[in-house]
Amino acid sequence: MSVVYDRVALIGLGLIASSIFWAIKRSGLANEVTGYARTKDTRETARRIGLCDRVCDSATEAVEGADLVILCVPVGVMGRVAAEIAPVLKPGATVSDVGSVKRSVIDAVAPHLPDGVHFVPAHPLAGTEHSGPESGFAELYDNRWCIIVPADEDTDPDAVAKLRSFWEGMGAHVDEMDADHHDLVLAVTSHAPHLIAYTMVGVADDLRRVTDSEVIKYSAAGFRDFTRIAASDPTMWRDVFLTNKDATLEILGRFTEELFALQRAIRTGDGDHLYDYFTRTRAIRRGIIEAGQDTDAPDFGRGGGRQ
Amino acid sequence: MSVVYDRVALIGLGLIASSIFWAIKRSGLANEVTGYARTKDTRETARRIGLCDRVCDSATEAVEGADLVILCVPVGVMGRVAAEIAPVLKPGATVSDVGSVKRSVIDAVAPHLPDGVHFVPAHPLAGTEHSGPESGFAELYDNRWCIIVPADEDTDPDAVAKLRSFWEGMGAHVDEMDADHHDLVLAVTSHAPHLIAYTMVGVADDLRRVTDSEVIKYSAAGFRDFTRIAASDPTMWRDVFLTNKDATLEILGRFTEELFALQRAIRTGDGDHLYDYFTRTRAIRRGIIEAGQDTDAPDFGRGGGRQ
Repeated sequence: MSVVYDRVALIGLGLIASSIFWAIKRSGLANEVTGYARTKDTRETARRIGLCDRVCDSATEAVEGADLVILCVPVGVMGRVAAEIAPVLKPGATVSDVGSVKRSVIDAVAPHLPDGVHFVPAHPLAGTEHSGPESGFAELYDNRWCIIVPADEDTDPDAVAKLRSFWEGMGAHVDEMDADHHDLVLAVTSHAPHLIAYTMVGVADDLRRVTDSEVIKYSAAGFRDFTRIAASDPTMWRDVFLTNKDATLEILGRFTEELFALQRAIRTGDGDHLYDYFTRTRAIRRGIIEAGQDTDAPDFGRGGGRQ
Repeated sequence: MSVVYDRVALIGLGLIASSIFWAIKRSGLANEVTGYARTKDTRETARRIGLCDRVCDSATEAVEGADLVILCVPVGVMGRVAAEIAPVLKPGATVSDVGSVKRSVIDAVAPHLPDGVHFVPAHPLAGTEHSGPESGFAELYDNRWCIIVPADEDTDPDAVAKLRSFWEGMGAHVDEMDADHHDLVLAVTSHAPHLIAYTMVGVADDLRRVTDSEVIKYSAAGFRDFTRIAASDPTMWRDVFLTNKDATLEILGRFTEELFALQRAIRTGDGDHLYDYFTRTRAIRRGIIEAGQDTDAPDFGRGGGRQ
């Protein structure tokens, strides 16, 4: 694998950024990686574990001379960070991000960037329920999708191609699409499901007639799959929902319509409606396994004594 | 491990029954296991793969002389099966089941059973998204919970204790509770979550502005966890919802209340409400990992190139 960017700067050093660093190192995609995080604690942890070649005490110091700057901060603060680093961006540099929403990131960041800097937002569809600088690992992006969303039609195609090579070098498959389509697709495949999982876990927590220990003990019964989703980073998800509002609310509206129809089928004893619905959804699951996006092993291959 | 029952009969030969057979063999819990399934195909498959010591062509033949009869059929047909086998049940035999709901199973089965037969319903909290006689394996119940629900307060305690030993011999932890409490707990931890997962998958399927391939390609983004739940056996789940109606509808009602509150927070931009809610649910996830009911490995330990 060859060097794609000479100098890379990572702003924010959580799960995503730390995994990018380890993946860069694994494949030799950059000569030097600088990093910056908001808190002193995080910067010291990063230095201690060797995360980044050079951890800086300011974002501007990290960004100076960088060919690629990746904003790995919550989407709610990207505008502020962009404003801060804009004066020191090298002409010809590429600014990118890893945010889970794209329209609002573009709207927040683009106005601050000088001419001559390429803005190529991105969104890697990967993550775990853990957070922080010590949670990253090089394999996070292997075989995962990364969606590249050029900020507008005038974006330099070479800058886009170079970012694509970078993400492919980290193991990902790359697709390109425009910002609004991205936000709708993610509302369906990720944002609405996450909110629903959060809600189900919250309801279980509230219910006093079923003890906490029962909910926990018997959580292998289906509930457990929801709780993994509901353990995601609260800051990140708050920002996602606040910034992908319209698409998320649309999907949730459709969801509640469907749910009420199924509730009615239960209340009225309409077994055929239920059976047909469940049969249809089983086929979708098969499609996902065939597309290679999940394992066919029973119970996600948890195996052994743990399921 | 020693023999608990001399003769065991399994009525229905799907995932649950086949796993019971292999677990019995693994630990030597019975001397002979007979089996019966409704379709000729299933019976022939069972014979071919050595599932059961003797596969019978009628339920009554399988049940004759059995010390333990386990009904492993959909809950909607348990009453009919009970009526069919009642005349040939051995005095002192125990009849049990593996149904996911308990009140309606007791109501359907108990009236048919003769005096002198012990009725001790049960519900093992274990399963995968696969079905059929070839899907079973001995380890399915290891470290899983099995809830025993004696049909009434007069149930013979020795019969209950013996069934407990049997399930513990298959690797499970055993709890006892009454039928209505069981049905409420399962509505919270399993039935409502399953319906919600089904609905989310159905909504994604309906949405034409997001192509099927995108939903599938990007399904590692959270949606995928729902689809495993939604691939469960349609017959079993139809019957579960039709027979655990009240508790399920109650939980779904709470769920929609909570969901609307979160939708409102999104619409009005109430970031604090969202942040607090997500922080609370993350703590519940930690509780589950600590209770040993799931793995702490990122992404359920899927690992490698597949996540």
